[in-house]
Amino acid sequence: MAESASYVPTDRTVPTRSRDRAAYDHETVHAILDAGYVCHLGFVRDGAPVVLPTLYGRVEDRLYVHGSTGSRPLRMAGAAKDPGLPVCVTVTHVDGLVLARSAFHHSINYRSVVVHGVAYEVIDEAEKRAALDALVDHVLPGRAADSRPANAKELAATALIRLDLREVSAKTRTGGPNDEPEDLSLPYWSGVLPVSPVYGTPIPADDLAPGLPAPAYLAAR
Amino acid sequence: MAESASYVPTDRTVPTRSRDRAAYDHETVHAILDAGYVCHLGFVRDGAPVVLPTLYGRVEDRLYVHGSTGSRPLRMAGAAKDPGLPVCVTVTHVDGLVLARSAFHHSINYRSVVVHGVAYEVIDEAEKRAALDALVDHVLPGRAADSRPANAKELAATALIRLDLREVSAKTRTGGPNDEPEDLSLPYWSGVLPVSPVYGTPIPADDLAPGLPAPAYLAAR
Repeated sequence: MAESASYVPTDRTVPTRSRDRAAYDHETVHAILDAGYVCHLGFVRDGAPVVLPTLYGRVEDRLYVHGSTGSRPLRMAGAAKDPGLPVCVTVTHVDGLVLARSAFHHSINYRSVVVHGVAYEVIDEAEKRAALDALVDHVLPGRAADSRPANAKELAATALIRLDLREVSAKTRTGGPNDEPEDLSLPYWSGVLPVSPVYGTPIPADDLAPGLPAPAYLAAR
Repeated sequence: MAESASYVPTDRTVPTRSRDRAAYDHETVHAILDAGYVCHLGFVRDGAPVVLPTLYGRVEDRLYVHGSTGSRPLRMAGAAKDPGLPVCVTVTHVDGLVLARSAFHHSINYRSVVVHGVAYEVIDEAEKRAALDALVDHVLPGRAADSRPANAKELAATALIRLDLREVSAKTRTGGPNDEPEDLSLPYWSGVLPVSPVYGTPIPADDLAPGLPAPAYLAAR
């Protein structure tokens, strides 16, 4: 394998179990992040954890996570601008259901990335525009250039937080079930049921002008 | 609409924005939970948030979340058995990409449930068995009865935490884009690209006995 830059493992990015499933190289981590658009953003509020689904985009070694100016994590990141907001951002793709003969060995094939760090509200306008483009292009590659860019009012109403990719790990499970040798003759089917997100037929907006065709990048999904 | 039992909204289950998307009735919450099997479990470690993907199952008004006896949240729930482990468990289904004429109004159709509470390690053997069945049946309905039940050693090696459904909210977005009136004539396609998980052809384990057919509940996925 070619050498590749890697994130440095830390106490909290080395899993307590299944360490062989962990990876830290940029290539693996970025590929998992780039394959998604919904993350789960964790932060602490009054000492208790909060986990919210939201949109994200990656730009090089930075992750941008979407909120609104009124949302709690954004207000917290804004209020604590200097120290920032400690967050954990997790992205997970499910690739298959792993069916073993034993209930115990049932599992899931997946790819996930966990990012720990401190998030800051994005203030710079140029950075905000680039981050918003990245978010839109994560949802649908090619879409940012084929939509009306945010105006000043919309940009002000868009709140984004930035999280540098430093303390990062990927975790991946692939392959079939790991049954116990003594279970192999049991009369239970075992194997993997693959699963992936599938995109359906585009539903035009009610007010879409007649004759405006669905763009090619939609079909690519 | 028929009356239905509801979870009582609290300060942290009432969203700061898009309150019209929030729901608290058991029917909506349970349907979203029952449609999934992967959750994102959030907890606090050394003052910082941690979000990990894991499996879960629902049994009536209780959520069971999977771990291993060596994993951090489980050790923390075990170590702090009396006070329990404050957690936030979030389940998200993505239903569509919402493409507006403006970058700003891009969105996602989704269904999500956020559960706040204190989790406890499951100790009771009968409860543990029922919870493990629920987990397996969330992954694939009908599978728990068609696999070898856990033996005593496996049950001891399975760690589950229980979280009562009390402080719970659902959030749902449906429908098309909400474009600005002045954007309607712009030459950008707008509408929704539906997305759903699709299950592929089952891949039998390498060591599966020849002639053992894939069960009917697999095809139902």
